[in-house]
Amino acid sequence: MALLERTDADGIAHLHMNAPERLNALSDEMLAAFQAQIDALHDDRDTRVVVISGAGKAFCAGHDLKQMQAGRQAEDGGKAYFADLFTRCASVMTGLTRLPQPVIAQVHGIATAAGCQMVASCDMAVAAEGTKFGVNGVNIGLFCSTPMVALSRNIPRKRAFEMLTTGQFMSAEEAVERGLINRTVPADQLQTNTAELAQTVATKLSAAVKIGKSAFYEQMQMDLDAAYAYTGQVMVENMLWRDTEEGISAFLEKRPPDWA
Amino acid sequence: MALLERTDADGIAHLHMNAPERLNALSDEMLAAFQAQIDALHDDRDTRVVVISGAGKAFCAGHDLKQMQAGRQAEDGGKAYFADLFTRCASVMTGLTRLPQPVIAQVHGIATAAGCQMVASCDMAVAAEGTKFGVNGVNIGLFCSTPMVALSRNIPRKRAFEMLTTGQFMSAEEAVERGLINRTVPADQLQTNTAELAQTVATKLSAAVKIGKSAFYEQMQMDLDAAYAYTGQVMVENMLWRDTEEGISAFLEKRPPDWA
Amino acid sequence: MALLERTDADGIAHLHMNAPERLNALSDEMLAAFQAQIDALHDDRDTRVVVISGAGKAFCAGHDLKQMQAGRQAEDGGKAYFADLFTRCASVMTGLTRLPQPVIAQVHGIATAAGCQMVASCDMAVAAEGTKFGVNGVNIGLFCSTPMVALSRNIPRKRAFEMLTTGQFMSAEEAVERGLINRTVPADQLQTNTAELAQTVATKLSAAVKIGKSAFYEQMQMDLDAAYAYTGQVMVENMLWRDTEEGISAFLEKRPPDWA
Repeated sequence: MALLERTDADGIAHLHMNAPERLNALSDEMLAAFQAQIDALHDDRDTRVVVISGAGKAFCAGHDLKQMQAGRQAEDGGKAYFADLFTRCASVMTGLTRLPQPVIAQVHGIATAAGCQMVASCDMAVAAEGTKFGVNGVNIGLFCSTPMVALSRNIPRKRAFEMLTTGQFMSAEEAVERGLINRTVPADQLQTNTAELAQTVATKLSAAVKIGKSAFYEQMQMDLDAAYAYTGQVMVENMLWRDTEEGISAFLEKRPPDWA
Repeated sequence: MALLERTDADGIAHLHMNAPERLNALSDEMLAAFQAQIDALHDDRDTRVVVISGAGKAFCAGHDLKQMQAGRQAEDGGKAYFADLFTRCASVMTGLTRLPQPVIAQVHGIATAAGCQMVASCDMAVAAEGTKFGVNGVNIGLFCSTPMVALSRNIPRKRAFEMLTTGQFMSAEEAVERGLINRTVPADQLQTNTAELAQTVATKLSAAVKIGKSAFYEQMQMDLDAAYAYTGQVMVENMLWRDTEEGISAFLEKRPPDWA
Repeated sequence: MALLERTDADGIAHLHMNAPERLNALSDEMLAAFQAQIDALHDDRDTRVVVISGAGKAFCAGHDLKQMQAGRQAEDGGKAYFADLFTRCASVMTGLTRLPQPVIAQVHGIATAAGCQMVASCDMAVAAEGTKFGVNGVNIGLFCSTPMVALSRNIPRKRAFEMLTTGQFMSAEEAVERGLINRTVPADQLQTNTAELAQTVATKLSAAVKIGKSAFYEQMQMDLDAAYAYTGQVMVENMLWRDTEEGISAFLEKRPPDWA
């Protein structure tokens, strides 16, 4: 079985982390598997939505600490390896944000450190009741500085600061309230509920969803006037597509759209 | 009756969208009427607060889709018309933000697409219980790229992303929790409750409210040091007004201020 | 007794505002006392956490209005004094953010205007039930333009705008929900609860907490790629410390870390 198993159905690509004995740690190998899938998905016109899940007791517990400690054996004490590792990890995290397809995290058990960062980096997230979220590297002397980039763009800053400096967990219920995830469901409904969300998005005009996702993150980093100038152009492009003309006509004529 | 009816009382300008049969669509004519009022209000020293509401079943259902489809008849398939349309719409939305007077949306029924954008673009919003908010253009193949500029500056990003890609509505109750609106009240109290909020703001020293509103949005786009350098200057200017000197004196002497 | 009393115990520096008869107003003298402590704490390697509290009925009611009015006697009507005052106040507020140690506000009674700004400027805040928060300068004709810099970076914008233009208070319960504070506890548990939070943070590896706090605010003002490039370097530096190597080893060996 692959470390990161991919299954495709109905325009939905499901990436399943499959290293349960290591709590799906983001080892060098796991990061490479993610990067390969991200690269493949980028130009995959058949895929409309991506779902990420994990096997075993945890969604993902972050970096592979044993592998990181082994990296210290190098002549530079691991400096070059660590710099490369965090660059590769950031490439995966921003790669999820920059995939044209919406990415949904299907979360259970625990999502800690870079595992919590992955949840925060996905566009949407559904979690099983009882799931715990944490950026608890501070407990072992390693502040979760890269995870906080994603976390602090999801939840209010004082709450993020508290998680980062106390190492304490956030419940799934609070994660919904604070905006880290979209919803929490009983564990036995996690898969079907996430699948329904994925299917809902997959029924939309895929080109519109893709241009919209890209514009979403771009405009958030702009000031107000620049954001409107940019998204106005996106709207014009979107309006000129044949499928959008058909979608609007169908709506005005109260019939379903005839999308190829 | 005007398409955008204006009534003035006690320093409060009330703009009432009056195209109920088209769910107060933001047609070319409606946008022009808004722009004219925004231009007139900009230097209107007698107006202290602006309220926006809509006639009929909905606050506003967004752009006028029939008119947009008709725009396709042009030689360029509508490209120039659409570009101009989104520029005019952005001018109205940012114009609300840049009016010196606080603008309150009085919302009922539904506020969708550019209608939801208008709610998000107002400084405050009161909604009738049962009001539904959506950015559901994705359902007809037109991603709500310009509405999301305003929406994503009001609510947490994962929740905004979900609304944009699923097309599903947000309830008024959740809109309060997430920060899209300030409060929800029973439908029969919508008008009086919004009026009370408007009156509360209208009793304040108008010059202070106006300099403060302008500074509010300016400083949010600055880094921390620039924001303090800028607002510090605003505070100095505010302190040097005769009415502010009187306001502080009155407070220290436990009497009402004598503001002209 | 000092205007700003400092007591130190177990790596926690407690700053206690001690002008209860003036509701701990941020007078010239109080601001100078804060700046002196901030300067002293900046390079104080023994201090791991800072707590700020106030004596009497209120945490802090903002600037000293009598002193401000007296400033008008100058030939320029107070212009130079006010400019200097807001510069000194901003230096204290940003100084709290830039202290290497986490700063926790222990809040009771009321926190208004620059007092609310101080709560918003701290990294975390615990409040007694019943505490009221406000930016109510608008009531006396002085819009809270500098307090809103901190406030608008803590809570959703429509709610901040409402507080600023109506002058109305926010309850401690809502302050938790909105992200202005971390938690609210019964008044008789305020001191012990805040102390527990401070102690929890103080048990962590102090160097990691300090590098993390600094990175937290720096990266929030960057775009996504710059934020990852910067925090990646922070992680590398953190990884190379002997105490972090020991912390990770201890975790892998299921024993407590041997930190000096």
